[in-house]
Amino acid sequence: MSPKALDYESINEKVKKVQYAVRGELYLRASELQKEGKKIIFTNVGNPHALGQKPLSFPRQVVALCQAPFLLDDPNVGLIFPADAIAKAKHYLSLTSGGLGAYSDSRGIPGVRKEVAEFIKRRDGYPSDPELIFLTDGASKGVQQILNTIIRGEGDGVLVPVPQYPLYSATIALFGGSLIPYYLEETENWGLNVNNLSQAVTQARYKGIAVRAMVIINPGNPTGQCLSEANLRQILRFCFQENLVLLGDEVYQQNIYQDERPFISAKKVLMDMGPPISREVQLVSFHTVSKGYWGECGQRGGYFEMTNIPPKTVDEIYKVASISLSPNVPAQILMGLMVNPPKPGDISYEQFIRESKGILESLRRRARLMTDGFNNCRNVVCNFTEGAMYSFPQLRLPPRAIEAAKKDGKVPDVFYCLKLLEATGISTVPGSGFGQKEGVFHLRTTILPAEEDMPEIMVQFQKVQ
Amino acid sequence: MSPKALDYESINEKVKKVQYAVRGELYLRASELQKEGKKIIFTNVGNPHALGQKPLSFPRQVVALCQAPFLLDDPNVGLIFPADAIAKAKHYLSLTSGGLGAYSDSRGIPGVRKEVAEFIKRRDGYPSDPELIFLTDGASKGVQQILNTIIRGEGDGVLVPVPQYPLYSATIALFGGSLIPYYLEETENWGLNVNNLSQAVTQARYKGIAVRAMVIINPGNPTGQCLSEANLRQILRFCFQENLVLLGDEVYQQNIYQDERPFISAKKVLMDMGPPISREVQLVSFHTVSKGYWGECGQRGGYFEMTNIPPKTVDEIYKVASISLSPNVPAQILMGLMVNPPKPGDISYEQFIRESKGILESLRRRARLMTDGFNNCRNVVCNFTEGAMYSFPQLRLPPRAIEAAKKDGKVPDVFYCLKLLEATGISTVPGSGFGQKEGVFHLRTTILPAEEDMPEIMVQFQKVQ
Repeated sequence: MSPKALDYESINEKVKKVQYAVRGELYLRASELQKEGKKIIFTNVGNPHALGQKPLSFPRQVVALCQAPFLLDDPNVGLIFPADAIAKAKHYLSLTSGGLGAYSDSRGIPGVRKEVAEFIKRRDGYPSDPELIFLTDGASKGVQQILNTIIRGEGDGVLVPVPQYPLYSATIALFGGSLIPYYLEETENWGLNVNNLSQAVTQARYKGIAVRAMVIINPGNPTGQCLSEANLRQILRFCFQENLVLLGDEVYQQNIYQDERPFISAKKVLMDMGPPISREVQLVSFHTVSKGYWGECGQRGGYFEMTNIPPKTVDEIYKVASISLSPNVPAQILMGLMVNPPKPGDISYEQFIRESKGILESLRRRARLMTDGFNNCRNVVCNFTEGAMYSFPQLRLPPRAIEAAKKDGKVPDVFYCLKLLEATGISTVPGSGFGQKEGVFHLRTTILPAEEDMPEIMVQFQKVQ
Repeated sequence: MSPKALDYESINEKVKKVQYAVRGELYLRASELQKEGKKIIFTNVGNPHALGQKPLSFPRQVVALCQAPFLLDDPNVGLIFPADAIAKAKHYLSLTSGGLGAYSDSRGIPGVRKEVAEFIKRRDGYPSDPELIFLTDGASKGVQQILNTIIRGEGDGVLVPVPQYPLYSATIALFGGSLIPYYLEETENWGLNVNNLSQAVTQARYKGIAVRAMVIINPGNPTGQCLSEANLRQILRFCFQENLVLLGDEVYQQNIYQDERPFISAKKVLMDMGPPISREVQLVSFHTVSKGYWGECGQRGGYFEMTNIPPKTVDEIYKVASISLSPNVPAQILMGLMVNPPKPGDISYEQFIRESKGILESLRRRARLMTDGFNNCRNVVCNFTEGAMYSFPQLRLPPRAIEAAKKDGKVPDVFYCLKLLEATGISTVPGSGFGQKEGVFHLRTTILPAEEDMPEIMVQFQKVQ
């Protein structure tokens, strides 16, 4: 009998080509060990609540009330919910057409998109149009939808930073496009050198690839750097000159651990540059409820904002979004709450600030603890985590270790991370999963383990050398 | 300057080819009219809560508590939540690793998948393996993922019933495959005739298309028929003979409005048939929290179960699912609650049964009211809605109306539905959005308007003739 359509040898080859190391060999092995009873510290994915971070109380109160709207009329509701949470729940329910159980518009609830637009305006100082904001089930889904719109086939290239978060390489592989890597400079604190960009484009064109878009991840994942305004200007100018759509992955915009370089959005810099660039460069920016001090990964909420995208294309993106009917509604409300949090004077304001500041300050301390810890290891060098949720130390593996890995048929950093996992229960991702220069090895770990566990974790890292 | 990557003329052609009438021209026009202040009755999409259906109390209490886990320790929680909801919330939180804010495994929470497997076993009388069940953000996402795994290019065909729910045509277009229509027999109550299937396959092969899979929608959407066991056997035998993967869209399995033909799952019939068929036919079955008496569309929860799919392919599907990290966790818990509802003796049992029975019995009455109403219209004939949530009457449009439509450059049923919308505010979907035989016209409306509004709605339909 000939192979069936879902036999391995006969499925879509693009599916097979996808690689996604964040949940790859290391994660699978860690899951096995966990099943066998070993204590595993999952630092492979930026999943704060899984490592003990508590959800912010106010947004959870509001979403809980939206899930149980019958409580809003209960005379006892005020005993366990604050009045401003009750008011907010009523506000968001009034924006839906049928509560959390009804599909929303496929772009998301209009009232929430308006709140997102107001947030962007406050952040950047430029108007934002709710009609050009689509809510999504997490930022990843938005990135996938935009790449699907751009990529027509393997002749289409997308510039992606290396090291990169493998959402990009995986999605480009799945849609059959070509990933054009541009290297970040580790010795310059993972800075983006525009000369590398030009080179990458030239090489790709030489191979006959039409370079159509460029991805930036700011703050960087896995690299943790924050782009300067000057750098963003260079990037936007480059996109203008080369006629590239810019995809701005800005999901870590709240995760900043130094004061010298605050987050600046690509949209703001684009608008600051004025015409013709501000009117010509096509930009799609992504955000999420999964990161920041929210860390609401499991809720799957995000948005993207489109700038300079023609209405007919927006209609096409809307049409494709509508096949999935709507993003999940509870996370849309969380997104509304994220962009429109409690204000001074609100009953829940003090608590909200206390909780969010507590998380952010602890992350800042952990970024420092981890970087210092790695730099105290023999044969490890590590740039400071300026932003995001990761540390990406370089491992100077001794020739002996590289030899042993080869014997085992493994990439050396995979071999190292497996060894680390078996010895310590720490589940990281090898640098090869993100891309790195030939002959150089890294690992990525989140900075998310509890602060009190951090010293012991760094001791564990130091042991496996 | 050459077109930019997101200019309409240069985006992915497959995106442009997608059609999705459920939220197409009619829906867009209805949304406009609503903005202008007109009262619109949205019957274009099976979205029960948007038309006033109340959520079931118990599952919402549980999910609300999971959203606000800090309430579980509040001494007042028992004043507004029943003890069994509190216990269930603790149960589901214990199955997560970090509550609703943490990504789950990309296949969904293992404990919930176990509950789904137990439900399937109770339903079918055959074991079900949790490792072959993936939770998804609604059934649509699961269908998309499986079709993406099957379709390699335009030489790959998928048999789809006509009329069909356009998720299938849209997704096949987006992935660049070929839709092979097989016609359901309107005069035989939308029955599935296996001769039509053979013909469709023969014709497709003649065109050089490799037919790889077949879709059934049972109960039917938009057609409302329930497949008999004999019919399901024929289909499975056909899939065996023709080496086709069967995709069983069974999202309406709770929506049955007649007693003669209960829902029978494709999985049960497959297992009943015994080897070699039961061991050979590859089957993927889809379910959701959006339909039934739950109607939790906005929450986006679903699952698919794989039968006879080799482990290596399951691994590939898992890998691709992991790019999106995880389905949203709140809806995973709703899925758990759906497959494992309150039991006799539980505090909330009586209320749960009262609420769910109330909804289902009302849907049954509305199915009857609507079918009878249409059959009382001049120039309309309508099969009884045996299941699902739709009525799909045939409109015998007079030549004058067809002429007028042509003059307006519109498909006649689109023209009719627009007229209906403008005159009555009822937003339906033209039959051409689902496919129909040449020269025959339909519309699809949900049976979801409130029971007390139904007589008036049918009067409105009768007027626009």
